[in-house]
Amino acid sequence: MTESSQPERDVRMRGFARRTTVADALKWLDENVARLPEEALPLAEAAGRVLAREMTSTVDVPGFDRSMMDGFALRAADSQGASAYNPLTLEVIGHSLPGQPFEETVGPGRAVRIMTGAPMPQGADAVLPVELVEIEADRIVAQGEVSPGKHVGPVGEDVAAGSVVLPAGRRLRPQDVGVLSSIGVAEVPVVRRPRVRVVVTGNELLPAGSMPQPPRIADSNGPMLAALVARDGGLAITKEIVPDEPDAILRAMRDEADREGADLVLVSGGSSVGQEDHAAALLAEHGRLPIHGIAMRPSSPMGMGLLDDRPVFLLPGNPVSCLCGYDFFAGRAIRLCGGRPADWPYRRARATLRRKIVSTVGRLDYMRVKLVEGRVEPLAIGGASVLSSTTRADGFVLVPPDSEGYPPGTEVEVYLYEG
Amino acid sequence: MTESSQPERDVRMRGFARRTTVADALKWLDENVARLPEEALPLAEAAGRVLAREMTSTVDVPGFDRSMMDGFALRAADSQGASAYNPLTLEVIGHSLPGQPFEETVGPGRAVRIMTGAPMPQGADAVLPVELVEIEADRIVAQGEVSPGKHVGPVGEDVAAGSVVLPAGRRLRPQDVGVLSSIGVAEVPVVRRPRVRVVVTGNELLPAGSMPQPPRIADSNGPMLAALVARDGGLAITKEIVPDEPDAILRAMRDEADREGADLVLVSGGSSVGQEDHAAALLAEHGRLPIHGIAMRPSSPMGMGLLDDRPVFLLPGNPVSCLCGYDFFAGRAIRLCGGRPADWPYRRARATLRRKIVSTVGRLDYMRVKLVEGRVEPLAIGGASVLSSTTRADGFVLVPPDSEGYPPGTEVEVYLYEG
Repeated sequence: MTESSQPERDVRMRGFARRTTVADALKWLDENVARLPEEALPLAEAAGRVLAREMTSTVDVPGFDRSMMDGFALRAADSQGASAYNPLTLEVIGHSLPGQPFEETVGPGRAVRIMTGAPMPQGADAVLPVELVEIEADRIVAQGEVSPGKHVGPVGEDVAAGSVVLPAGRRLRPQDVGVLSSIGVAEVPVVRRPRVRVVVTGNELLPAGSMPQPPRIADSNGPMLAALVARDGGLAITKEIVPDEPDAILRAMRDEADREGADLVLVSGGSSVGQEDHAAALLAEHGRLPIHGIAMRPSSPMGMGLLDDRPVFLLPGNPVSCLCGYDFFAGRAIRLCGGRPADWPYRRARATLRRKIVSTVGRLDYMRVKLVEGRVEPLAIGGASVLSSTTRADGFVLVPPDSEGYPPGTEVEVYLYEG
Repeated sequence: MTESSQPERDVRMRGFARRTTVADALKWLDENVARLPEEALPLAEAAGRVLAREMTSTVDVPGFDRSMMDGFALRAADSQGASAYNPLTLEVIGHSLPGQPFEETVGPGRAVRIMTGAPMPQGADAVLPVELVEIEADRIVAQGEVSPGKHVGPVGEDVAAGSVVLPAGRRLRPQDVGVLSSIGVAEVPVVRRPRVRVVVTGNELLPAGSMPQPPRIADSNGPMLAALVARDGGLAITKEIVPDEPDAILRAMRDEADREGADLVLVSGGSSVGQEDHAAALLAEHGRLPIHGIAMRPSSPMGMGLLDDRPVFLLPGNPVSCLCGYDFFAGRAIRLCGGRPADWPYRRARATLRRKIVSTVGRLDYMRVKLVEGRVEPLAIGGASVLSSTTRADGFVLVPPDSEGYPPGTEVEVYLYEG
């Protein structure tokens, strides 16, 4: 049990009469967050965003029959029987370039020089590739034949007018943006990014970017949470560090001065029930706090509820607990609000344990691990206050509440931090 | 062979006497792009960026011994023998809160109320958890004992002064940013983002965001390339669409008016050797064009070289070729310049083929596929001009040059577009 020697603030015997299971907490969360409404975004900003609606094309792409080769547009019938032994001569009456079509009709015995992507001229129904042709001033000698439609890309070949090009909920890939551009979309309806207020509390904290000055320490949760929120598609609104005073904390959670408002609120520190742990009491008094204390480790003091109808996540101040509590609950809420899949963005891998993992029945354990020669090594130093355990780790393994852990050699699933 | 009926512009018999293998093209690329120098970035912008140098801490974190529990700091010896049957009384002489330490020394028979994270007072060497205590006005009755060091996190427990916290080359994760903040880093040395000029050529093109007006089509490569560049950590510099005129194309490739300059140049369109394909000739004349024509499909007209010592990638105008050529070469160059791993950002999965894949020996094939009930289905419509084939696909399978393809049931590796 890697954490037994350095327990995080243990609240089992004090404020938390009963701890909610992770499953029940997730159930509450899923029932209390909803996808945000859509907003229109210029195409150039849409990559990586989540499509709010199915997209249907109003146009054919291409809007015309086009040549798929460099060669000569002609009536296929005029090439019938042509070969190296039976060359047939056609008169070249013009050319068709991309964007600059040949405007007349191609009659019998005639051909138009055409480039890949250029519109097929009227009358022509096939393209004789340049490789099958000898060019002589304003005539060509065809040395091969083509059938009708050969090397012609028909109108609507890429996208047919009226067809669905992308489903709702799609996280837009670079090529999706390309296809939207090809059908003339200038603004894309995407799910609005969740605005996430990050409230960091603690008298001992100096702002990120400060040198620690004992007994004060530099805030690590604020910048970490801002980066996590951005990773999950949210827009972090970070304010100054809030002192451990009830009025200041309530004001920061509500932040009525922020006219745009937040969709979600994260509070770092003070989720527990100790002397200076005000946030939970404030949330219970001014809003709702249905979940407080979760059967997991770290992050057991985690709380969540609603204030002014806004989901609020109370994250423990210990940085590993803060990361873990964010990842289990707040990150999921942000992803759901933003229309992303609820699942973690972490890549998964299966590998076998080099050493045993010991866990306590009745709680879910979040174990930082390293991959050593392809096998899983639990980290020995894993206290919830040691954030560097999560930077030395390659990822984590979850041990479910009904398990006492795993012996060496067990194949486990590793969630890799590098997403 | 899903593409045989709709070949992209076929250049085998015309300009490309010999096509370079993908392996040789990658070798040239790896020898001709280098990691960019570092820049200093505020901590709040550093997540996701690549660390240019190993980071070493100048401070201990924490900078003091701290309590790991809510409880009472005392001399461990004073608790020896305490139990529910043998309660021992101590005098409470003050409290230590995070950031607000108790400034005096704890003598024998004395205790200081202490919160998790608060500095240990002088004289005390252990913390008696609040659960093992009865509190009576200004005294406590200890009902359990602790050994020296118990529930104390020593100075430097998280990060020791002088230790390496993060290796060079690390793509910074949220918790890495947290740890950097905890050691007082305000600015982070990261590899500069590659500036990538995206030059889109073609008289037939309307700017992205326009409705297509036959015979003109809306540019899809420009917005797609900008999104790809951003995905790979580059900064896309997109300009107006360039007409098919040599002077204009050369000017756009050089863009001397851009004083900051570009690290890499991508040119969409005109990589081939046809009538209006100027870019390759210009690069050969004014710079170097060592690679032109690659044994792959699509993207065989792909070219790359140097202009004013800057790597230039000539991408075919056909959008699937453009995507494929970007992914094989330009994207790799951008990732290498930016200090990222050369490998594709696509997740990989192994699955079996539902239908056969047929390929031609001598070239590498890039086959768009769907996953249907966990099995791999090659897409029937796969012309290089049909960009929607890459939005309907879940990913692609590569068939190496020495293979004629695979029968149904073969297990293949799929690169999933959703990265």
